[in-house]
Amino acid sequence: MNQTIYFEDYELNSVRETHGRTITEADFVIHAGHSGDFFPHHLDAEFARSTPFGQRIAHGTMTFTIGIGLTAGAINPVAFTYGYDRLRFPKPVFIGDTIHTRITISNKEPDPKRANMGRVTEKVEVLNQKGECVLACDHVLLVQRRAG
Amino acid sequence: MNQTIYFEDYELNSVRETHGRTITEADFVIHAGHSGDFFPHHLDAEFARSTPFGQRIAHGTMTFTIGIGLTAGAINPVAFTYGYDRLRFPKPVFIGDTIHTRITISNKEPDPKRANMGRVTEKVEVLNQKGECVLACDHVLLVQRRAG
Amino acid sequence: MNQTIYFEDYELNSVRETHGRTITEADFVIHAGHSGDFFPHHLDAEFARSTPFGQRIAHGTMTFTIGIGLTAGAINPVAFTYGYDRLRFPKPVFIGDTIHTRITISNKEPDPKRANMGRVTEKVEVLNQKGECVLACDHVLLVQRRAG
Amino acid sequence: MNQTIYFEDYELNSVRETHGRTITEADFVIHAGHSGDFFPHHLDAEFARSTPFGQRIAHGTMTFTIGIGLTAGAINPVAFTYGYDRLRFPKPVFIGDTIHTRITISNKEPDPKRANMGRVTEKVEVLNQKGECVLACDHVLLVQRRAG
Amino acid sequence: MNQTIYFEDYELNSVRETHGRTITEADFVIHAGHSGDFFPHHLDAEFARSTPFGQRIAHGTMTFTIGIGLTAGAINPVAFTYGYDRLRFPKPVFIGDTIHTRITISNKEPDPKRANMGRVTEKVEVLNQKGECVLACDHVLLVQRRAG
Amino acid sequence: MNQTIYFEDYELNSVRETHGRTITEADFVIHAGHSGDFFPHHLDAEFARSTPFGQRIAHGTMTFTIGIGLTAGAINPVAFTYGYDRLRFPKPVFIGDTIHTRITISNKEPDPKRANMGRVTEKVEVLNQKGECVLACDHVLLVQRRAG
Repeated sequence: MNQTIYFEDYELNSVRETHGRTITEADFVIHAGHSGDFFPHHLDAEFARSTPFGQRIAHGTMTFTIGIGLTAGAINPVAFTYGYDRLRFPKPVFIGDTIHTRITISNKEPDPKRANMGRVTEKVEVLNQKGECVLACDHVLLVQRRAG
Repeated sequence: MNQTIYFEDYELNSVRETHGRTITEADFVIHAGHSGDFFPHHLDAEFARSTPFGQRIAHGTMTFTIGIGLTAGAINPVAFTYGYDRLRFPKPVFIGDTIHTRITISNKEPDPKRANMGRVTEKVEVLNQKGECVLACDHVLLVQRRAG
Repeated sequence: MNQTIYFEDYELNSVRETHGRTITEADFVIHAGHSGDFFPHHLDAEFARSTPFGQRIAHGTMTFTIGIGLTAGAINPVAFTYGYDRLRFPKPVFIGDTIHTRITISNKEPDPKRANMGRVTEKVEVLNQKGECVLACDHVLLVQRRAG
Repeated sequence: MNQTIYFEDYELNSVRETHGRTITEADFVIHAGHSGDFFPHHLDAEFARSTPFGQRIAHGTMTFTIGIGLTAGAINPVAFTYGYDRLRFPKPVFIGDTIHTRITISNKEPDPKRANMGRVTEKVEVLNQKGECVLACDHVLLVQRRAG
Repeated sequence: MNQTIYFEDYELNSVRETHGRTITEADFVIHAGHSGDFFPHHLDAEFARSTPFGQRIAHGTMTFTIGIGLTAGAINPVAFTYGYDRLRFPKPVFIGDTIHTRITISNKEPDPKRANMGRVTEKVEVLNQKGECVLACDHVLLVQRRAG
Repeated sequence: MNQTIYFEDYELNSVRETHGRTITEADFVIHAGHSGDFFPHHLDAEFARSTPFGQRIAHGTMTFTIGIGLTAGAINPVAFTYGYDRLRFPKPVFIGDTIHTRITISNKEPDPKRANMGRVTEKVEVLNQKGECVLACDHVLLVQRRAG
């Protein structure tokens, strides 16, 4: 489950896709309980009927948590999360939707401060069962360069 | 628990701070189970001893989930999340740390596409019990303008 | 989220209502696991079909936990729970019901033992989406009087 | 696990005691997530240090949930909960306390409305590892009388 | 809840059956989160539609956990689990199935190493609402003999 | 995350080891709530002090669930669980232990009923941080043979 990939080995425009996961009403309840956010948009089916979506919608923090969690397969011991940019939620996630994550290597550049490292940008897209994008962001990694 | 605040009413540089929450080993376990990320950095105390931090560190997605969740007090029915920018994790969160969130209104501008709305940026800082910032990001909101 | 209300400031017959929350099958499962009560009335759909209700019904302790939890918005630092009286469950809660809580200030009286405090009674009613009362009780608070 | 006990068979002053259960930090976190009550008295160790108790205290609704849950062993198919009276929390429950429940049959009387039933009162005491009472209430049951 | 049964008192071919429990989508989610097994056979409704079962199936470890858990009523302080043999899953468990467990005392024999103990085999069958066996195994117990 | 391995490709005596996971008090609580087994051996620290182990011990079903769960990395689409044999718990698991799983291919044989399949036995050993075996069993798989 460890897979070392150095900066030089990331291939621009390469793509990987994860398995899917159906987002259940139980996930909504668990995420409310974990985050402490019990807003009726997420948990009150009666209220939600009166909104433009007509039903409960997932917390953005849950789509992020599960969407990123789906990518946690192999560990790259020479890569570290620097941060996330431009996190957006173009479509809502509903109870019963099945999401998976597509990662595209969208950028590589030297790290301005660390000569032995580079920055790799993963374009993250979380997609539902219709292929619609429900979350997009850029995941910026710091990755070691090969020695010497 | 509903508190309507229009675009015009957001005051630049105003600050609010939430209550605190102690991040427990249980939260680590629950977040792993919710996200599906069981990486040993978060869940294996033996492995973690060998890392620079010397102990298990929180998932970034958990710090985000709980840090944002702490702000979910009153609902502003005329505000909507547009997205999050420049999400960074300057310091790790350890088991037993107590975090709270500070929100500063850091920017206001017209929405380029919607005349009846404006964009409000909340600078989000999640702070631990030592006052160190463990998560920073910009939360961009779309907020209705007062009618007429 | 802190809101100081002294004994003198509680207004008899004033009413507040909380947001709603849909009680899900997941809540039934979580409550069984938390309480240790796995009685088939709550968890066995086949058995429940043979009961007068025809379906699984919520644990009374869950309706109490969530009904009271819904009221945990602002903290009054000068009020303390003394206890609960006449806790009743006039109607069952089913999977999919949406409940919210109505609080009415129903009594105020001096505290017999503490000159600097008074007793405030909140009549608690947990209501379902049809407006039926599924839990009623009196929540008795000890509240500080204004100094002097 | 079914044990039929008719009204006539409840023996006044008889006592039963349950097994014990250690209340963990995980239970605090799970109860907050289930109830939606994230007040710092229960979840913020830093804040709790400044209170008279010096540490986090359990939600009253959790002590009730687990204290009553401990009694859910055998099912009496001819008994039904009527309600709970005089629910009090004489002492706080701290993380690491071990509680169990003692039930004493404290009253029996005819049901005023139903000739075929009687009312049985169980005095409920939840006790910690020092033998201190942390929750007391009267659990009122409606119990069928033997036919004929 | 304690019920002492010595080796001599186990009656060959005697049978006991537990209450039932409906296996919910929430149980699937909780078990994935507890075990760390997020395989799409259990959690991805879209993928599952393409399998021979046509829907998500329970983790074998969950059927084992809940099937055995259902038998945890009375404690026999003189019996200890030695192990489980021939654990099989003849049929899948689907969301919404209601299972219960049937225990048959299928074998008794002296313990080869401990003169004061015997081995008791419980044939464990977990059955769904149609009476189909979804899990079978032999639970081997070490049980004290009566003194003298 | 899919990795097809045919019967012919399993190499006798080959070994793989998983990452580790620290078993927390939270896991004990979650497993009790999931299984419905609240026996004091697992959840009552006071009682456990009086046992030979001197502390709470993990449910066998939890060690099985997590020990097997740790192996759920890549999916082999041509392999299916047939069952588990000789499941034993040579040592207890305590709160704070860190376990990982070692899988050894210990047997390969033709399937007696299915010409296109073979049986592969994985010897499963769950080991704690001292290298002690806390669970052992044989996991029997049915695996497709290469076509032709």
